[in-house]
Amino acid sequence: MLVVGIDLGGTEIKAGLVDSEKGIIKKTSHPTEVEKGNKKVIENITLVALELMKGVKVQSIGIGSPGSIDRGKGIVRFSPNFPEWHDFELGENIKQNTGVEVFVENDANAFALGEWYFGKAKGLTDFIALTLGTGIGSGVVCNGLFLTGKNGLAPELGHMVVIPNGPQCGCGNRGCVEAIASAKSIAREARNLLERYPNSLVLNLAGSKEKIESKHVFDAYKQNDPLAKVVVNFAIDALAQAIGNYIHAFNPEKIIIGGGMSKAGDALFIPLKQTVNKFVMTSFANTYSIEQSLLVEDAGILGAASAALYGGRVI
Amino acid sequence: MLVVGIDLGGTEIKAGLVDSEKGIIKKTSHPTEVEKGNKKVIENITLVALELMKGVKVQSIGIGSPGSIDRGKGIVRFSPNFPEWHDFELGENIKQNTGVEVFVENDANAFALGEWYFGKAKGLTDFIALTLGTGIGSGVVCNGLFLTGKNGLAPELGHMVVIPNGPQCGCGNRGCVEAIASAKSIAREARNLLERYPNSLVLNLAGSKEKIESKHVFDAYKQNDPLAKVVVNFAIDALAQAIGNYIHAFNPEKIIIGGGMSKAGDALFIPLKQTVNKFVMTSFANTYSIEQSLLVEDAGILGAASAALYGGRVI
Repeated sequence: MLVVGIDLGGTEIKAGLVDSEKGIIKKTSHPTEVEKGNKKVIENITLVALELMKGVKVQSIGIGSPGSIDRGKGIVRFSPNFPEWHDFELGENIKQNTGVEVFVENDANAFALGEWYFGKAKGLTDFIALTLGTGIGSGVVCNGLFLTGKNGLAPELGHMVVIPNGPQCGCGNRGCVEAIASAKSIAREARNLLERYPNSLVLNLAGSKEKIESKHVFDAYKQNDPLAKVVVNFAIDALAQAIGNYIHAFNPEKIIIGGGMSKAGDALFIPLKQTVNKFVMTSFANTYSIEQSLLVEDAGILGAASAALYGGRVI
Repeated sequence: MLVVGIDLGGTEIKAGLVDSEKGIIKKTSHPTEVEKGNKKVIENITLVALELMKGVKVQSIGIGSPGSIDRGKGIVRFSPNFPEWHDFELGENIKQNTGVEVFVENDANAFALGEWYFGKAKGLTDFIALTLGTGIGSGVVCNGLFLTGKNGLAPELGHMVVIPNGPQCGCGNRGCVEAIASAKSIAREARNLLERYPNSLVLNLAGSKEKIESKHVFDAYKQNDPLAKVVVNFAIDALAQAIGNYIHAFNPEKIIIGGGMSKAGDALFIPLKQTVNKFVMTSFANTYSIEQSLLVEDAGILGAASAALYGGRVI
């Protein structure tokens, strides 16, 4: 079966023609052009979809979008980073323009579906997928069911408060794991600590304070840079506490971690696994594994495609 | 349909003949006699079951037991408070002695099933049930499914760590919500603070330091006792943080709270609701309500009966 997977990002639309057995067959992309308004975004999505559909029979289209999604109606209710996407009728518009059914899914949930269909969660009934990027996105499958909750808002695992009155989070709360362990938060903490560690390697690697990203912090961490160690340890403690809590809540077989920050590899995963172990009750020992996603750059497209492949089966 | 519900406690076996429409028809009880060994416990359970089955046709028996349960086999794998119940073959033994099918369920999960069948969760697809007692027990229904996870261990929401390096919990961790906001933890905190508040009303109400229970603390709290305020506020902050986290994880329609401590009523529920509100993201506002269980003393029997009524439908 062929579907189109569209990863709708703030700056770029990445899309692929995806075979349910073979994965991505063909890829394309186009600037999102958010600044030109919703009509233009619809035009651009239509453009990439029709390009991929040329000469082949496509079953349906899946779109992974940031924000809160009304799955039934294919509407982006709101997207914190794109205020103009309020009640943005993606599904219906793309369906009219392409003539095939369209499934719209939150990008973090789409990532989880992609792991379920094409990745490390293939065949599993119980897993958690996390994306560590600007924020922390999440998707959960428990007892074989993709969890979305009463209003389709679950799971927002990135907004688990792990430190009461901790760092301010974009959501309005304090101490969410996202406010401590996301790529953005790690970069912020590193910038905040520069005055105390003026000779930190992080600064050399980034070039300037403003340019510091989480990858510079992890690269410095690998070289035992004191600032990087403080920041990474703070993030890993919070993330491990959160993952321990997820394990106790959902009893998953795997926790699969993707997103830009997961590229840190062993520097992230080795200490993270050790610290999670500290938080997990004896009765849950050896019930789970923590693994790095292998979908990498294709995670967005494969996730969106999986939203189409699972289609109506996901509530 | 008639079933027998058996609430297996450490000191007492409470049991009832339960009609699926009318609820409890007849009740009985018997000492558990844990100290006389597993064989005696089986004998006592059989005794109450046969008493209730006399002259009526019973479909099946549900047993709610503390500890970790193997649902498929009806075995109590282990129960922290009753070490001798290791791989305790409850289901098969009671089936042989009574001639009807037996469903064994963890008592906190049974409480959730009881709320689903007979209580405030009737007809709901998304809710969380919490019991505030010696520990904090939990059961979750999400997207219409009773969640148990890969190994049937979920959900252990009482062991969500809410304060890193917080008070020691019986599970080995520190800062679990159970270690702060359970009845036992509240009594412990009150005892710990007595030296600083030697004239606390809590001491008058309890009679002596050793006799302090959470109900004395809540009674003193209602009268603005300074010690009680410190202890209750600490517990409510932790519990509210945990409930906020549960709401973001599961997007439930209701959070139903039972167990001995829920009898504190408004003294618990009014400040709890206000504090949970602080932790909940805007997008989840007005999606949930927090309610006191009405099953009260019958919650254990009705929960166990519901485990039988749901029977094979619960994974």
